Amino acid sequence: MDQREPAPRITLEAFRRLCAQELPFLQVFSAEIEAIGHGWARARLPASGQMLRPGGTIAGPAQMALADFVMYAAVLGAVGEVPLAVTTQLSINFLHRPKGALVAECRLIKLGKRLAVGEVRLEDETGTLVSHVTATYSIPPER
Amino acid sequence: MDQREPAPRITLEAFRRLCAQELPFLQVFSAEIEAIGHGWARARLPASGQMLRPGGTIAGPAQMALADFVMYAAVLGAVGEVPLAVTTQLSINFLHRPKGALVAECRLIKLGKRLAVGEVRLEDETGTLVSHVTATYSIPPER
Amino acid sequence: MDQREPAPRITLEAFRRLCAQELPFLQVFSAEIEAIGHGWARARLPASGQMLRPGGTIAGPAQMALADFVMYAAVLGAVGEVPLAVTTQLSINFLHRPKGALVAECRLIKLGKRLAVGEVRLEDETGTLVSHVTATYSIPPER
Amino acid sequence: MDQREPAPRITLEAFRRLCAQELPFLQVFSAEIEAIGHGWARARLPASGQMLRPGGTIAGPAQMALADFVMYAAVLGAVGEVPLAVTTQLSINFLHRPKGALVAECRLIKLGKRLAVGEVRLEDETGTLVSHVTATYSIPPER
Repeated sequence: MDQREPAPRITLEAFRRLCAQELPFLQVFSAEIEAIGHGWARARLPASGQMLRPGGTIAGPAQMALADFVMYAAVLGAVGEVPLAVTTQLSINFLHRPKGALVAECRLIKLGKRLAVGEVRLEDETGTLVSHVTATYSIPPER
Repeated sequence: MDQREPAPRITLEAFRRLCAQELPFLQVFSAEIEAIGHGWARARLPASGQMLRPGGTIAGPAQMALADFVMYAAVLGAVGEVPLAVTTQLSINFLHRPKGALVAECRLIKLGKRLAVGEVRLEDETGTLVSHVTATYSIPPER
Repeated sequence: MDQREPAPRITLEAFRRLCAQELPFLQVFSAEIEAIGHGWARARLPASGQMLRPGGTIAGPAQMALADFVMYAAVLGAVGEVPLAVTTQLSINFLHRPKGALVAECRLIKLGKRLAVGEVRLEDETGTLVSHVTATYSIPPER
Repeated sequence: MDQREPAPRITLEAFRRLCAQELPFLQVFSAEIEAIGHGWARARLPASGQMLRPGGTIAGPAQMALADFVMYAAVLGAVGEVPLAVTTQLSINFLHRPKGALVAECRLIKLGKRLAVGEVRLEDETGTLVSHVTATYSIPPER
């Protein structure tokens, strides 16, 4: 983390509370937010539960959900608790079949007044880059 | 449906059986395949269960999962039961907040030997186009 | 064209004048706007000049430029002459190698206050869909 | 550059010669390849010529062409002179209006037998990230 980086505008605790209220489907796939900074975040998805394919690999839809989740954390880390921030576009490249749990890291590459664009990298337990995502959030004007 | 369209290469029954084996996470969000043709398919996601956001709208990750699901059906409708066909890329534009259940229709716009590209439109109960997806499947060579 | 469709908010003549001022690089590849409606447009790119590959096929970058151009026309057809409308995202799938001239048709699938999303289909002289594009324009708030 | 990185499979000279034969439209916007490694490349586009918008900013279509060009170099750096390698998908986020010349760096994030996926960053003279691209190349099987 850059020392000049501003403090995150949401805490892990506040983010978890918000998710429990707003995103009940997160319970389904049990992603865990691990860290939030100003414009970046890291989350983890264990290789268990209903989002596995036979063989134990985490399914593509779970990867997309994880990417959207960690992007949301990175955006709120930069702009604070803005519940109406919504994804407008998401593009994912699936690169390799994952082994075990996934770690997703998001970094915003643009933070404008109206749009935030982020890049998410999903790595599996072996450190392989299993998918790469870019996503755009629309940020409501009144805040 | 075009009368000259070839017959689908997978039946609804075979597709449902395959999903039950291969995609257990589908149980989570209870999408239902409704029709499969040669290179197209239609699926439905009821507005219930764990994939809802407060207010009853179907969450973005559930829309992505639904799009991937119906694309899989359209691909198998064109190439037959090829379990190793995998999504390599998916791009979604979220256009409007949905009201109620979603219906997703996929149509392949390219069916090559190695790649299939499809377009998916997700409409809600009011007939509003809520999201638009393009996705690419890689088709294994040996078949 | 739907009879209930509102009148376009820019004429072909005004659009051509704007392009001559704002987009001098259009001269390079000599795309021609053919029709503009309220939220849709059609343009044509002849198979000649510097944008050809050996064999006479129109190169990928020229296809992307054509798609961006016709999307711009469709957006201005819906919102009027807003010079600061800019592309924020463009995603293209190249499907088939084109034969001869290209015709591009854009239709907006969302027209919001701040974002317009469009779909562009590029067909060649044989009627083959050679590429498919989705693009997003950001529309400045003050207008 | 990683010391364990294999040698590039095409030289700058061979790449320039190939482009002069295959991509005559490159003359239009005068992009210059600067470096090619095994799976990465760097190119530069001066702020001059026909691809400028009023005010001297490099137009979006020129950015897309530059990204496609540097991706091609990175792919050939990894697989050697394979003229039939073609772009199948390209997705770009335009982040900031550029000032002056552009430098584009591509790095492959996947190099499979049939598909290569790369990430391209375009920076302007001030070091600002002006656009971000992901692209996919299809690599012909027989080589």
